[in-house]
Amino acid sequence: MESATLLIFCPDRRGLVAAITDFIFRRNGNVLHLEQHVDVEHNVFFMRVQWDLAGFEIPKDKITTAFTPLAEQYGMTWRVHFSDEIQRIQRMALFVSKEEHCLYDLLSRWQSGDLRVHIALIISNHPTLGHIAEKFNIPFHQFTITKENKAGQEQAQIDLLKTHNVDLVVLARYMQIITAEFIAQFPNRIINIHHSFLPAFPGAKPYHQAYERGVKIIGATSHYVTPDLDAGPIIEQDVARVDHRDSISEMIRKGKDLEKTVLARAIWTHLGHRVLVYNNKTVVFK
Amino acid sequence: MESATLLIFCPDRRGLVAAITDFIFRRNGNVLHLEQHVDVEHNVFFMRVQWDLAGFEIPKDKITTAFTPLAEQYGMTWRVHFSDEIQRIQRMALFVSKEEHCLYDLLSRWQSGDLRVHIALIISNHPTLGHIAEKFNIPFHQFTITKENKAGQEQAQIDLLKTHNVDLVVLARYMQIITAEFIAQFPNRIINIHHSFLPAFPGAKPYHQAYERGVKIIGATSHYVTPDLDAGPIIEQDVARVDHRDSISEMIRKGKDLEKTVLARAIWTHLGHRVLVYNNKTVVFK
Amino acid sequence: MESATLLIFCPDRRGLVAAITDFIFRRNGNVLHLEQHVDVEHNVFFMRVQWDLAGFEIPKDKITTAFTPLAEQYGMTWRVHFSDEIQRIQRMALFVSKEEHCLYDLLSRWQSGDLRVHIALIISNHPTLGHIAEKFNIPFHQFTITKENKAGQEQAQIDLLKTHNVDLVVLARYMQIITAEFIAQFPNRIINIHHSFLPAFPGAKPYHQAYERGVKIIGATSHYVTPDLDAGPIIEQDVARVDHRDSISEMIRKGKDLEKTVLARAIWTHLGHRVLVYNNKTVVFK
Amino acid sequence: MESATLLIFCPDRRGLVAAITDFIFRRNGNVLHLEQHVDVEHNVFFMRVQWDLAGFEIPKDKITTAFTPLAEQYGMTWRVHFSDEIQRIQRMALFVSKEEHCLYDLLSRWQSGDLRVHIALIISNHPTLGHIAEKFNIPFHQFTITKENKAGQEQAQIDLLKTHNVDLVVLARYMQIITAEFIAQFPNRIINIHHSFLPAFPGAKPYHQAYERGVKIIGATSHYVTPDLDAGPIIEQDVARVDHRDSISEMIRKGKDLEKTVLARAIWTHLGHRVLVYNNKTVVFK
Repeated sequence: MESATLLIFCPDRRGLVAAITDFIFRRNGNVLHLEQHVDVEHNVFFMRVQWDLAGFEIPKDKITTAFTPLAEQYGMTWRVHFSDEIQRIQRMALFVSKEEHCLYDLLSRWQSGDLRVHIALIISNHPTLGHIAEKFNIPFHQFTITKENKAGQEQAQIDLLKTHNVDLVVLARYMQIITAEFIAQFPNRIINIHHSFLPAFPGAKPYHQAYERGVKIIGATSHYVTPDLDAGPIIEQDVARVDHRDSISEMIRKGKDLEKTVLARAIWTHLGHRVLVYNNKTVVFK
Repeated sequence: MESATLLIFCPDRRGLVAAITDFIFRRNGNVLHLEQHVDVEHNVFFMRVQWDLAGFEIPKDKITTAFTPLAEQYGMTWRVHFSDEIQRIQRMALFVSKEEHCLYDLLSRWQSGDLRVHIALIISNHPTLGHIAEKFNIPFHQFTITKENKAGQEQAQIDLLKTHNVDLVVLARYMQIITAEFIAQFPNRIINIHHSFLPAFPGAKPYHQAYERGVKIIGATSHYVTPDLDAGPIIEQDVARVDHRDSISEMIRKGKDLEKTVLARAIWTHLGHRVLVYNNKTVVFK
Repeated sequence: MESATLLIFCPDRRGLVAAITDFIFRRNGNVLHLEQHVDVEHNVFFMRVQWDLAGFEIPKDKITTAFTPLAEQYGMTWRVHFSDEIQRIQRMALFVSKEEHCLYDLLSRWQSGDLRVHIALIISNHPTLGHIAEKFNIPFHQFTITKENKAGQEQAQIDLLKTHNVDLVVLARYMQIITAEFIAQFPNRIINIHHSFLPAFPGAKPYHQAYERGVKIIGATSHYVTPDLDAGPIIEQDVARVDHRDSISEMIRKGKDLEKTVLARAIWTHLGHRVLVYNNKTVVFK
Repeated sequence: MESATLLIFCPDRRGLVAAITDFIFRRNGNVLHLEQHVDVEHNVFFMRVQWDLAGFEIPKDKITTAFTPLAEQYGMTWRVHFSDEIQRIQRMALFVSKEEHCLYDLLSRWQSGDLRVHIALIISNHPTLGHIAEKFNIPFHQFTITKENKAGQEQAQIDLLKTHNVDLVVLARYMQIITAEFIAQFPNRIINIHHSFLPAFPGAKPYHQAYERGVKIIGATSHYVTPDLDAGPIIEQDVARVDHRDSISEMIRKGKDLEKTVLARAIWTHLGHRVLVYNNKTVVFK
């Protein structure tokens, strides 16, 4: 079965659900799934609607054109995905440094088929984890980064990602700050895992910060990367309880499990075309 | 603004979303909120749809009749709520025994306006908590229950509930088993709080059972009461971590907080007409 | 049975457990419970030890003097509690403004005996909750606070607290900032509940901040009050999951349950003499 | 530094802490860490005490003999571990079937050094995961199990485990029931991961059971294997929230993350000699 999925947000107005579903019904589309939501604080309307294309009177390649007038009338930010495109395996690049727990976790999810994705390549600023890439037969590229060579190295990385037709960049404990120029090449397509419950403890050594502050709960946060460090739209978070008996190394040990799970969930959601970004926040459709 | 809300479940069939929304659109109804879901294991379709009645071409008192043919065609189990009815304050009866934590919690939520409900009366098998009812000016009726008088006392309770036009019965740690005859008078309108993570530890003294089994997490469960003890449709659950240092009395202390919160959430959801019951399970619309 | 409990922290040194337990054993004391911990990051030693006073060779009123040389030798910060003092009901003052959920919750815990404490008085900057104090027969004192009268009003509050021999001050959603002068009168004896997962979202309107940041989990934090706003030693925290469907008012509703539970747990722990404060953090003995 | 660690449980009696620490002090032992606990429901005393052996007047190989009289006097169940033995890398065997998530997770923890253990061999009743063993250079032994050959195959497995001097057997989603004869060879040294929140949903297909029951929270449980199926002493548990939108396959996906984490935590705790088993429950020292 072939289907289309519309993801929309726009200022909320009376009649929006009707206007959109009407567009589908009048052309004999059969709605398979519909979810909508209104952010009442900011008066923003969100919708995800999927319909069967069998019998739909507009040919697939004309749907975008056909929907545009309605979208413009309501000031929609929108995109449409088709099932064949959704079923296409997306291409992911992993950026790592020296920590391997997230890398191993993503590789095993990919190998077991739990994460339906193609891992196109692994990029690192250190050689440390090259042996893992080798074990899993994935191209591994090392880019040593210094203050002086950063711009050039990032351009080389971007070129490499483009060559590999990468859809999604995942920073799996990559310990370098990505520049705004790099980010601009992959808007809302770079996912980072930060090892704290943001906005608490942004920046370096969050477990040390958490220990010093004496919090009773630690966390991990995955978010889209924006030029504002650790301040991009949050996709997923989770937490674990600690007490005074937990040293920093205990917190790090507990935190690694959070990081693995939270990052994997964020990637899974992104790959399913289930995330809308607005106002530096996310709407995650189930 | 006046609105109508349909809650529906039925065997899933192609075209259901379209058929239902079409019913609304063709009569000039403006959909305000729509949520639907398919249980793919059992092929059951669920929907909650709310629309503005302004300009709707079917008068309010004819909507049920108008929708019936469609409902019958698809074999729907359904109900419709109107906004004036939703805004009507529902009438709740509380059944208690000797434990006061849930009673106090519900009373304070009612007094603060956090729980939009009218507490019509409190029924107990013991006089212990009568002073609290008095403090909050709520009628308190004591029914001592023995094996011999149970049928008669239950009938008297039912009569009292009917006199008070009670919409919802809440067993807030009521330590008596309700008979099937009583339950039949209030189908899916009696909510119980059980002090374990069901289906673990049904029946008496669940914290003692949990202690003996050595579980590392305890819980509480609120559910609709059915003749099958502690086996009715679950509305809400929550858990808390324990370890070997927690005695039974510590578990009871931690558990009380779970019980309060879980029961209150279940009541809140029920009062908002957000629960559908099917196959002895619940669908809880947000 | 009469017992003594020592709470100690000091720089960690070899032989500390032995030195302390030796002090007890040599005088024929029988250790009932002992818990110790070392903060390896800062080389700080913590201990809580309780022993039976029956047969102990030092009379109760001489124990402090007898222990002092050892304490000085190791540079200990320490205190001793005796069981009759622990069994003494402590006196608590509640500061409130207009929100009643924490107030009702503490009152019901006190009335049910779950919180072994005497609520000596309620202080508020508004008359709103006076009727609740009246319902529970607790003295209610209103102090309207303005920029101009703040110093005087705080002095009057302090006088009132001293008159009532208050051991513990609890800010149960009191919406005024307490001055350093006030705090200095009750060091580590003022507990606040902050409606966020600190250090995220300190200050005013944390749920609004959380909503704007788009976090997926909200929290509540209870801590000792220090002159540094919302930065005192954390005693207890808890969290709840939210998603894009939760409006600010939904967050507030969910958060209230967190606030009630977290504040009550912190008070319960404090009353049990189970909290040590050092480096602006807490050690909470079970 | 060389140290000794005693793990003890016995009927609680006055003077136990003193008797045990006295044994250490009188021989000039310096206590490094002490944790004790009393199960007040069953009057059972637990202790874990670690002391420095430098200057201790009893030679290491005489400590067991020296402690025995005291142990017998109090009816203790006890064991002593020495630091060199604790630092010895223990040898672990993994039993798997077709599911790879726990296997990959344990392998990556082992490779990264987060789990200080030697994975001696992998045993499976299917050839499916052999390629993973190969990737990580670990011996892989396949034992096809039928009703007829079960006794013989188990004996061959036991022989193999003995040949490899295995300390710990981990059932990482091994889908065979182990016989009482096998278990008797490794008492409290076989850890299983069960994919439900035990005692709810023991036996086969727990996610299907959870789905049918309509629970709002799912879990995973790791426990020592006893002849009573899924009823051994629980070491660790964790849970995740689900709602009506989660299909069985969604529950399985969420559950896998729980299984990985819960199993790894149980193994980590066991390897650290931190678990005492009594009354079919565990005491887990931090």
